[in-house]
Amino acid sequence: MRVAILAHEKFPDRAKTAVGILRYADYDVAAVLDRELAGDRVTDHVPDVQDAPIVAGMDDVGPIDALVIGIAPIGGGFEDSWRPDVRTAIERGCDVVSGLHYFLNEDEEFVELAAEHGCELRDVREPHDELTVSGGRAADVDAEVVLTVGTDCSVGKMTTTIELARAARELGHDAAVIPTGQTGIMIEGWGNPVDRVISDFTAGSVEEMILEIGDDHDYLFVEGQGSIVHPAYSAVTCGILHGAMAEKLVLCHEAGREDVHGYESFELPSIPRYVDLYEELAATVHPAEVYAGALNTAHLDEASARRAVDEYAETLGAPATDVVRFGTEELLEALL
Amino acid sequence: MRVAILAHEKFPDRAKTAVGILRYADYDVAAVLDRELAGDRVTDHVPDVQDAPIVAGMDDVGPIDALVIGIAPIGGGFEDSWRPDVRTAIERGCDVVSGLHYFLNEDEEFVELAAEHGCELRDVREPHDELTVSGGRAADVDAEVVLTVGTDCSVGKMTTTIELARAARELGHDAAVIPTGQTGIMIEGWGNPVDRVISDFTAGSVEEMILEIGDDHDYLFVEGQGSIVHPAYSAVTCGILHGAMAEKLVLCHEAGREDVHGYESFELPSIPRYVDLYEELAATVHPAEVYAGALNTAHLDEASARRAVDEYAETLGAPATDVVRFGTEELLEALL
Repeated sequence: MRVAILAHEKFPDRAKTAVGILRYADYDVAAVLDRELAGDRVTDHVPDVQDAPIVAGMDDVGPIDALVIGIAPIGGGFEDSWRPDVRTAIERGCDVVSGLHYFLNEDEEFVELAAEHGCELRDVREPHDELTVSGGRAADVDAEVVLTVGTDCSVGKMTTTIELARAARELGHDAAVIPTGQTGIMIEGWGNPVDRVISDFTAGSVEEMILEIGDDHDYLFVEGQGSIVHPAYSAVTCGILHGAMAEKLVLCHEAGREDVHGYESFELPSIPRYVDLYEELAATVHPAEVYAGALNTAHLDEASARRAVDEYAETLGAPATDVVRFGTEELLEALL
Repeated sequence: MRVAILAHEKFPDRAKTAVGILRYADYDVAAVLDRELAGDRVTDHVPDVQDAPIVAGMDDVGPIDALVIGIAPIGGGFEDSWRPDVRTAIERGCDVVSGLHYFLNEDEEFVELAAEHGCELRDVREPHDELTVSGGRAADVDAEVVLTVGTDCSVGKMTTTIELARAARELGHDAAVIPTGQTGIMIEGWGNPVDRVISDFTAGSVEEMILEIGDDHDYLFVEGQGSIVHPAYSAVTCGILHGAMAEKLVLCHEAGREDVHGYESFELPSIPRYVDLYEELAATVHPAEVYAGALNTAHLDEASARRAVDEYAETLGAPATDVVRFGTEELLEALL
């Protein structure tokens, strides 16, 4: 499938869906739409992903099958400045894939236009109707469950989850990903958007996925969300922690981050404090331990990244690395 | 308003909405529907609330304005055995008030029937459309915020919240309740059903209420939900804890309860462990302390209740009582 990715004014640092898709999805990316970077190429900004031209809008994009909304702003709203591009895409017969809280399928203009042009509007963040409360049974599956947890949003939980599962498979293990967010769902092609379900069903929506495939694999890598200290998103984090009933946690962090992204008056606790918080809270439902750390060092040079990773491992008292930069070997040794 | 309360096969112990309404709501209760207890009276089972006859079904109920669904089963579904009573109520021109996850307004038969007979179907658990993520600002209001937290579901968080707020008002303080669940919303006449909102908006839906009235009162008593160790509901508990940003917590517990209600393979931690868990998790967003304890001793005789309360206070290292049985004086002294 050939796609364009809309990421206006946010590529690459605040367009994590776009970057996730460029890095992992089975799409052929024709272009990234970002009117502020038009004329650049993806690899001018992100070195280690699929390359594509960056353009100002749909008028500069050749034939594609679908337009993917590659931005997920706080609150998950749709910005009206994106409307002309979505409109053009539909008028050209393209499907539109979105992970926003705002559902394209509830937008009158898009629904009408899509019907007229025979296009599909795919809201991957729309939960299915059969979700319910957790039964506290995720630990009953045969697979060993590994969960990525974070010090904050956007520190690399999804990336770490996917890198670990892929590398485990390359080593011959039967490992699968449990996707819990819009980007993970777009990449894996299935999953419950845990941050969009009824709050009472948060843990249940994770448990449902684990029960569905947990007896068919040896390892499940569950994509975590948010952070347990996040003023807005901790509920989702807590629900995933208790719903997944993982034995092993991987603590994800971004080198140098000191306060909550977008909530700068909230300081992040120390790394050992996070370890205690996650382990103690998990243990009330199912005992879990932080077995490894994943550090996002994208903004550091090679030498500083090495130092940061070493320091993180020491603070954590567990193996740690940047899985994109230095691979997953050390972490998998600790986890499998 | 004159109402009947549907509580088939669950009154009184598993009908906490019914009991909450009998105890606190500004309704004149004509009857409680429970086909298993038909012929008894409410006060045969619950001594300290508004009395009413218990009947087998709507056919035995005189003129009323509304039928209230007084049961909230795990998962919040509608049981088809209740359908004849709801149908009869609507056919007699009564409104129907429900706090179920299942919305009466999405039930074709009821919607049609209600239109025909000019009745209103009031789903108090349907969140409004403008909810969003928390901004981490609840602590900015003038009011002091007190939050009830629990060792489990159904241990008395709502009762404690309402008793404390009412008693504080009787002492001349300007105190209000922040209702977060269906029963609290029915009693107070407003509120967000926090366990029914989009999981990402859990903390935000609490913050919204606090910002709305927090500058108009001296004290806000926030109704907690679930428990931070609950395999299914901890997400909601965590969202309320971080969204409310309370300074003072009241730990609610039922005397003798040892494992999670409905999830009996999960043992409850010790009381001091709860204190640590709640305080440590709260502190990552806003510092809070357990100032008092509320013990539900409904199933104990007077002497055992006294002993249980004393023991609870000692374990907690803070004043504790059964607010229904022994009043709120001690707790308010600690809290105000």
